[in-house]
Amino acid sequence: MGLPQSVVITEVGPRDGLQNESLFVATDKKIEWINRLSDAGFRHIEVSSFVHPKWIPQLADAVEVFHGIKRAKGVVYSALVPNERGLERAFEARVDAVSIFMSASESHNQKNINKSIRETYPVLRPVVESAKAAGLPVRGYVSTVFGCPYEGNVDVNQVLSVVDSLLDMGVDELSLGDTIGVAVPTQVTELIARLSKEVPLSRIALHFHDTYGMAMANVWAGLLAGIERFDGSLGGLGGCPYAPGASGNVATDDLLYLFQKLGVETGVNREQALLAAAWFEQNVGRTLPSHAMSVLRGQ
Amino acid sequence: MGLPQSVVITEVGPRDGLQNESLFVATDKKIEWINRLSDAGFRHIEVSSFVHPKWIPQLADAVEVFHGIKRAKGVVYSALVPNERGLERAFEARVDAVSIFMSASESHNQKNINKSIRETYPVLRPVVESAKAAGLPVRGYVSTVFGCPYEGNVDVNQVLSVVDSLLDMGVDELSLGDTIGVAVPTQVTELIARLSKEVPLSRIALHFHDTYGMAMANVWAGLLAGIERFDGSLGGLGGCPYAPGASGNVATDDLLYLFQKLGVETGVNREQALLAAAWFEQNVGRTLPSHAMSVLRGQ
Repeated sequence: MGLPQSVVITEVGPRDGLQNESLFVATDKKIEWINRLSDAGFRHIEVSSFVHPKWIPQLADAVEVFHGIKRAKGVVYSALVPNERGLERAFEARVDAVSIFMSASESHNQKNINKSIRETYPVLRPVVESAKAAGLPVRGYVSTVFGCPYEGNVDVNQVLSVVDSLLDMGVDELSLGDTIGVAVPTQVTELIARLSKEVPLSRIALHFHDTYGMAMANVWAGLLAGIERFDGSLGGLGGCPYAPGASGNVATDDLLYLFQKLGVETGVNREQALLAAAWFEQNVGRTLPSHAMSVLRGQ
Repeated sequence: MGLPQSVVITEVGPRDGLQNESLFVATDKKIEWINRLSDAGFRHIEVSSFVHPKWIPQLADAVEVFHGIKRAKGVVYSALVPNERGLERAFEARVDAVSIFMSASESHNQKNINKSIRETYPVLRPVVESAKAAGLPVRGYVSTVFGCPYEGNVDVNQVLSVVDSLLDMGVDELSLGDTIGVAVPTQVTELIARLSKEVPLSRIALHFHDTYGMAMANVWAGLLAGIERFDGSLGGLGGCPYAPGASGNVATDDLLYLFQKLGVETGVNREQALLAAAWFEQNVGRTLPSHAMSVLRGQ
């Protein structure tokens, strides 16, 4: 079926997962969590965020977490950075990679960043330039790629325009996000087909949320379309800020099941990842919702 | 993408869902549940089972349920029938269609039916013949098509052999089940490609369990491969007898989301189906696990 031999998984649980959990997880627990992730074989871990703690209090300890973690060889420890002030803190924390973010839909960008899409580029450009000048790779998250909580459908041309602008800016990898988890596989297939004519797909990651239970089908559609980079959150940590109680990121442990059974390498030890999730669950104050964790509990 | 204009959904919650719930749901609640399902537009409802109540006590009231439900025009009310004795009770209940069952793997068939696969056919044949003689369509469930709790992998040739035998017997439609929810999309694609050479795909339904979170991806793979019939359980009612706490059938309400967004008709009113699930949830003693229900609660 033309599946790739391997895929790259970016574990976003420590950042995207935790920022959507209500509980503040103690700094030393976060540090142990991230160490357990690298021990399990994850090679791309989004550790935290340098968005102002006023907005994401759960990740107010970003610098301490970065200073506390073991730096495993070959692992890229990244962080979310909103602007130049955030980048200063990221440098201080010695991040390995910088993740910037914006939305594909105008109104989500406005609500989330308090700027229009056009006004956002001049904020991001110096961040990208400084990061690259410091030798750090840059990932660009594009939110609301498959649907917007305020506008509904998002035009593919609008997505392509944002993608092009970020790549022109020097961003190395784009993570296209279904922020509110509304996409169905046809949307993935169509978007990737369009993108493949303009962009090397090796620079595109897909970032699905499972609000409506479509994430795994969308991963499959992405894989068939030639995508080899996927984001996930171990245990299904996190949630959806627009639908309280709904699922968050696609669960990395469920992704690991898929890829293992497909014979596609991830570099991650699935059993060890599950044990790490079972350990971390004790610090989250709720049962982690991934399918793999449910099976583990039932055994 | 060559999607069909419409698909047929068989709602198996009242049978496959309830038989995996620990609580006995009162007969009048079951009757109202099924009436609400037909009101919502479901046209194929598996109402109950005539397997001996010793094995499935949750469905001991099958005859009463059949006698109590409103018979909506155009709706096929089916029931599971294990043998000729069960068929007598099914006739007494005035079922519209008969569902027989067996497994694709020898050891699951042995444990579930207490017979080898070869010994099972002579038990099923008279059931099929009597049902057909009475003018009733017959559906054949084949369990463990994509994996067996005792044997692991199941050979595609073994599946094809069972499929052929049942079709030769006069079974109208086969529902191929991933009983323990272990399949990944490549298995679906490969099996359907093989089947399509021997069998009209219009006679094949797919029946996924979501144990490892793969059900929706497998539905998508099935749809791409030309399958137009899918089983589901509204709200995600049910569970997996081999993995306590794990997911049951793919949630029909999540299927309805998929098909609605794909523009594929199901004949079911999604909003009404969700309201029916929200009503039924009160009788189940636990929160129904579908994604659509989580979103509904969060709104």
